[in-house]
Amino acid sequence: MTDLHPPESVVPEKPAELATLIRDIREVMARNRLVEGLVDRSAEPNHALVEKIVHKQNLTRLAQKLEHCHPADIALILEALPFDERMVIWDLVHSAQDGEVLLEVSDAVRTSLLAAMDRQEMLNAANTLDTDELADLAPDFPEQVMQAVFTALPLAERERLRFALSYAEDTVGALMDFDLVTVRADVRIEVVLRYLRRMDDLPDHTDKLFVVNRDSGFVGVIYLKNLLLSDPEQEVRDVMAQDVVRFHPEDKARATADAFERYDLISAPVVGERNQLIGRVTINAVMDFIREARDEERLSQVGLREEEDIFAPIVRSVKNRSPWLAVNLVTALIASRVIGLFDGAIEQLVALAALMPIVAGMGGNVGNQTITMIVRELAFRTLDNRDIRLLYSKELRIALINGLIWGGSLGLITFLLYHDPALSLVMATAVSLNFLTAAFFGVTIPVTRMKLGRDPALGSSVLITAITDSGGFFIFLGLATLFLMK
Amino acid sequence: MTDLHPPESVVPEKPAELATLIRDIREVMARNRLVEGLVDRSAEPNHALVEKIVHKQNLTRLAQKLEHCHPADIALILEALPFDERMVIWDLVHSAQDGEVLLEVSDAVRTSLLAAMDRQEMLNAANTLDTDELADLAPDFPEQVMQAVFTALPLAERERLRFALSYAEDTVGALMDFDLVTVRADVRIEVVLRYLRRMDDLPDHTDKLFVVNRDSGFVGVIYLKNLLLSDPEQEVRDVMAQDVVRFHPEDKARATADAFERYDLISAPVVGERNQLIGRVTINAVMDFIREARDEERLSQVGLREEEDIFAPIVRSVKNRSPWLAVNLVTALIASRVIGLFDGAIEQLVALAALMPIVAGMGGNVGNQTITMIVRELAFRTLDNRDIRLLYSKELRIALINGLIWGGSLGLITFLLYHDPALSLVMATAVSLNFLTAAFFGVTIPVTRMKLGRDPALGSSVLITAITDSGGFFIFLGLATLFLMK
Repeated sequence: MTDLHPPESVVPEKPAELATLIRDIREVMARNRLVEGLVDRSAEPNHALVEKIVHKQNLTRLAQKLEHCHPADIALILEALPFDERMVIWDLVHSAQDGEVLLEVSDAVRTSLLAAMDRQEMLNAANTLDTDELADLAPDFPEQVMQAVFTALPLAERERLRFALSYAEDTVGALMDFDLVTVRADVRIEVVLRYLRRMDDLPDHTDKLFVVNRDSGFVGVIYLKNLLLSDPEQEVRDVMAQDVVRFHPEDKARATADAFERYDLISAPVVGERNQLIGRVTINAVMDFIREARDEERLSQVGLREEEDIFAPIVRSVKNRSPWLAVNLVTALIASRVIGLFDGAIEQLVALAALMPIVAGMGGNVGNQTITMIVRELAFRTLDNRDIRLLYSKELRIALINGLIWGGSLGLITFLLYHDPALSLVMATAVSLNFLTAAFFGVTIPVTRMKLGRDPALGSSVLITAITDSGGFFIFLGLATLFLMK
Repeated sequence: MTDLHPPESVVPEKPAELATLIRDIREVMARNRLVEGLVDRSAEPNHALVEKIVHKQNLTRLAQKLEHCHPADIALILEALPFDERMVIWDLVHSAQDGEVLLEVSDAVRTSLLAAMDRQEMLNAANTLDTDELADLAPDFPEQVMQAVFTALPLAERERLRFALSYAEDTVGALMDFDLVTVRADVRIEVVLRYLRRMDDLPDHTDKLFVVNRDSGFVGVIYLKNLLLSDPEQEVRDVMAQDVVRFHPEDKARATADAFERYDLISAPVVGERNQLIGRVTINAVMDFIREARDEERLSQVGLREEEDIFAPIVRSVKNRSPWLAVNLVTALIASRVIGLFDGAIEQLVALAALMPIVAGMGGNVGNQTITMIVRELAFRTLDNRDIRLLYSKELRIALINGLIWGGSLGLITFLLYHDPALSLVMATAVSLNFLTAAFFGVTIPVTRMKLGRDPALGSSVLITAITDSGGFFIFLGLATLFLMK
């Protein structure tokens, strides 16, 4: 019966319980460090020995506890621990769970776990995984280990692995698995039911079986619920659905995720050029993809390429954070040179130096708001030329109104601070003009990237800020030179 | 048989086909405008009439096409159209689909659609929806319509609606539905199978039935696949799973979404204080929640409270964008006053004005990187005091190394530009100190928000930028005053 157990038979923890477990582990670990200290320099070797035995017992209890943990929970625990403690716990994890845990942990933590494993341990872990899971881990395994895994696989699996590895990370090919249960259209439901009853288990997320013809050509799907609800004397062809959402291995993963969200899918067939059934995509692969895409988006907004675990070595963090700082150094220098052009004006009227960052900063806000709105819009549809004209007109009008409101307020504030009507007028005009600049490029940047087939969000924020900074300084100091200098 | 049809029997479109359909609609609409123009001022009334008939035919064809569209696709089409065209298409949508479409569209578009419906149309739409779906739409319906819907419901449904409405938006109570199929533990599988065969259909996303006792107490679940794989002579209790992930209606939606991701769930029971089975949460409610949370996060990063459709009225957009600009006005003014403190120094050495934005800008980058890393870390675990100490030490060390690298480079560049060794040294020191400030507050802000039980991300970016701007100006100009002024 154990094969029939659902995945939840390994009890997942409630968040609160998981937090308690992590706290317990860290206490045992803290005690461990204490004990090691005692053993090293104790005047009472017997006492230290007792402590050491107690500690051993604690570890054994932890190992037992971990054995009943869901691999996703073990992954979470490992991620929550500093390097040394993580390695102690990783040693305690039962080797049968190693593979699943490696799949679940974040990239940064996976690297640290793999570094602690020898070749044989990696091979054992690999042997517990399906082909599609192996394909996910392949880039992280040392090449010689993957070679050994590869040659040990049966021929059919080897082909699948080669296949799964041949697709780019952002395609359906990389999301799909091969856990298909297929039936033929011309058999009776009753036969299907008997066939299923001879199986030990169905793959996870099986909400439908796939109907194929003699040449593995995809014909349709039959839902598990229809197997249960239909008259067993009917044939599969009578209850199967033919018009189902299907994907091609080269389809974009992002569009696939959208389709899963939109049509509330649990699993969907992946079908090749010649209509052959290749594999399936399941909701859990899609959710993993969505989470990773979201994480990448967050990181890329501040120019980070990879996640950093807070316990990671400093040197890697410094490298990870450098590219954005380098880009910003360049854009900041350009802005600085723009200011340098007007040093005469600033010398004459030092208030300009205090006011110019306001013009630049608020322009940056307007630009980033515009970009965010457009990127959101582009996420779920393509804009045609009429939409784009409409966008320019709308954003420029909003910028104009906001320019009058906020430029006007700033003009007034400037007057209250410096009692200089001409300076106030220059301030109000500069703010409005920089808002218009921000709106114009806020539309132009993402729309141009879309037309070039690139991700409209990537780097847009850095670019717009560079433009509104240098542009803001130029407009404000330029107007000041024209109208305020003698 | 039609009841047995899977949801996909209404064929969802491939993204490319959907784009074509939208293009077709817009062409028909453009023609429409042309025709209306002709009718108004045509010298050839007959020609205009012919055109008008052709246009009517086009609209009829569109209506037929829409009838076979998935509600999610209709929603996408409506979202892609400007206001006028959207209303024409909304009129064409079959009233039986109105409810589903309203559920699928974005908040901004929903408002525009509801504004075009009369009371009776809203009531009809409401009647096609389940209680949990009604609860989702309730805030958007006019109160008197909801009253009428409410009184028309059977008593049990009314209770459920009241119940669903009583939970906050970010709790499991707001995600759950009531489409439960329940069985008793002491019946044989065979009886369950016969019971199911008498049903027309199972609720969407039914991967398991819920096992309850005489008092509706939750006992366990039985997976559909186990119904298919098990010996029909066994009793439900023999194959059911008891240790399953369950939720309480007051549980946080976010933690629930994490659990669905972590344990790859399709549906899960919602159980009350006295162990009574209340409802269930399904993966599609969770995915909707994740998408909405992601959208909100993106918007809140640039201080926007609601999504704006590009065709929305300008006034609403201006309002939506104002709060962030107001906050920024205040922070920019503070930074400006900090600069104002040092106008004497700037007058003496105008190069300071050109260099100070670099110090501020790069400090902002460092702070935002730190915050992003920590918010990511906080998303999946709580940090204890030891972690927090570790974080401070790590981030400050990274900031110091980066300060030496980038501060050093900027010192060198300053020397090349201004040939002033003392100014170069002040620049390098100020950059490094502002990096340290950024790292310190980059840890302090999200950690403090976490300790106060707030969302660590919200507003963090605005706050850190305010600190690194004012702080950067103060450090740089302060050092310059101390060391460079006579």
